[in-house]
Amino acid sequence: MLSEFELIARYFTRPLHAGSRVALGVGDDCALLAPSPGMQLAISTDMLVAGRHFFPDADPRQLGHKCLAVNLSDLAAMGAKPLAFTLAFSLPEANAEWLSAFACGLLALADRHGCELIGGDTTKGPLNICITVFGEVPLAQALRRDAAKPGDDIWISGSLGDARLALAGYRNETSLDAATFDAAARDIAGTRMHAPTPRVELGLALRGIAHAAIDISDGLIGDLGHILEKSNVGATIDADALPAGPMLAQQPQDLRRRFALAGGDDYELCFTAPASARDAVLAAARSASTAVTRVGVIDAGHNLQGHALRIVDAQGNPLSLDIHSFDHFTTS
Amino acid sequence: MLSEFELIARYFTRPLHAGSRVALGVGDDCALLAPSPGMQLAISTDMLVAGRHFFPDADPRQLGHKCLAVNLSDLAAMGAKPLAFTLAFSLPEANAEWLSAFACGLLALADRHGCELIGGDTTKGPLNICITVFGEVPLAQALRRDAAKPGDDIWISGSLGDARLALAGYRNETSLDAATFDAAARDIAGTRMHAPTPRVELGLALRGIAHAAIDISDGLIGDLGHILEKSNVGATIDADALPAGPMLAQQPQDLRRRFALAGGDDYELCFTAPASARDAVLAAARSASTAVTRVGVIDAGHNLQGHALRIVDAQGNPLSLDIHSFDHFTTS
Repeated sequence: MLSEFELIARYFTRPLHAGSRVALGVGDDCALLAPSPGMQLAISTDMLVAGRHFFPDADPRQLGHKCLAVNLSDLAAMGAKPLAFTLAFSLPEANAEWLSAFACGLLALADRHGCELIGGDTTKGPLNICITVFGEVPLAQALRRDAAKPGDDIWISGSLGDARLALAGYRNETSLDAATFDAAARDIAGTRMHAPTPRVELGLALRGIAHAAIDISDGLIGDLGHILEKSNVGATIDADALPAGPMLAQQPQDLRRRFALAGGDDYELCFTAPASARDAVLAAARSASTAVTRVGVIDAGHNLQGHALRIVDAQGNPLSLDIHSFDHFTTS
Repeated sequence: MLSEFELIARYFTRPLHAGSRVALGVGDDCALLAPSPGMQLAISTDMLVAGRHFFPDADPRQLGHKCLAVNLSDLAAMGAKPLAFTLAFSLPEANAEWLSAFACGLLALADRHGCELIGGDTTKGPLNICITVFGEVPLAQALRRDAAKPGDDIWISGSLGDARLALAGYRNETSLDAATFDAAARDIAGTRMHAPTPRVELGLALRGIAHAAIDISDGLIGDLGHILEKSNVGATIDADALPAGPMLAQQPQDLRRRFALAGGDDYELCFTAPASARDAVLAAARSASTAVTRVGVIDAGHNLQGHALRIVDAQGNPLSLDIHSFDHFTTS
């Protein structure tokens, strides 16, 4: 059996890119990284646990992709350009085939974004993967959660809910319309769940245009709620304007609304921008080859019912949906 | 039961220090960090798993200390000044008492070194703690593993082997001299295992004096081996010059040698410096209030037996000890 050091060397050690901001990569006590002059470092960390964030028998190539994708999504939501990441993981056993496929999925996505693996840690234990990612963003241009302003449009990238729909399929949830959600549809939706696309290019294109941004990992309602809380504003969302994923779009209205509003695992951006910037937002989206949809507006604050977030239908009538955002310790 | 967000807010969110390099801390998609002008960022990540790196019923306050200490030790070995860290962990349950004590131990050590918690992730799962730490070091002054030169002295900070001795005590290993290693001795040695002291001040004081450095986490032989490999040099170590911990010093010679050479969990620095810098090394050690001991010398390369590392006794006679460095996937 390969030792820990041999495994790391074989699958995860590569030469640094030309022109890299990384002065020293894998193989010392620390990596050394220098952001470009005038840039701040944006840092995020995510831990993925078998049975909680992915199935224990998940395809290792998709898993490698997803572990980095969820971190790149955080950089995207900040308007930061990916530079590098560290990878720490515990594994029940040192399986060369599994590690090879995992590294392949991980490093393919890393290469696509010029994001270098600069350090890590491997140990024996229940399957757990922790990535910390580093990007850079010009001083004062980061897309923060506390920057939404009353009157801002609320925008969503891509589409929502297909990842949650795939999960419903795996779980055989009875609310599914079995006639339209067959195995083929589940596989298509499953791609959104297993291999999300971080909206890095969109985040970069929105610098100087968007006010606030967040990535939607725990469901739109919960994540938009963080913007409202940090910015001390309210919002009105048109549930029927939400861009449902292609598979979710074929499901009944109630499921469509619920999964688009509180699905989780979408990894789309929710951002706000002044109404005067609509053309600029659409141009940024085109330059990033990413669809965006206007779904609501930021209000001054709490409405009459004491709720910061009001959800309405296409006719503007308030909806009262029994939905909760995903919270790791309070659900399942 | 408290939600994930409430738990984080209660125990881990604090205001930033005055004059901090951290522009944005916990609570957004990313933290924002700017190293001082002329500085590189030093980055390290370590993952600690219950049952592997600590007992599942470990005292949470000591555990909080240890998780950060092992990361600060990596910064120390690079000569980097601690700035900030991220904390990701999975927990079987959200236990307020446990979290409160864990945060207390963690943040007390963080405060001692001006190291700010800037982000994290919590989730449900088998107990696993992953910290990524950030320090800064002037360009070209980092203490790298590849910088040892033939003729360099080899130095060790503090003392070795008491952490390994404590583990032997917990395991009731038969090689122990029960007359000298009683419960009281085990508790004293256990402090080294449960609450190691990262040699941050010494690492800073050795900038511009030491050539290569590494922290001893997996046992001296294995960790010095990384310096030898990266620097393409050999070494001779006097096993009887090694500074055994106060409890290990009372054990028989064979155990003393084995645990000092390959104990693990020491978190001392092993560094090399030219013989001309002996006074400077001793002055640096005094300024850092940390003992240092000269234990060997760097050679040009492989000796006649093909070994890069030669271990001798006090009389210079080669020792052949049946010891291996700690490797997570090949032991236990």
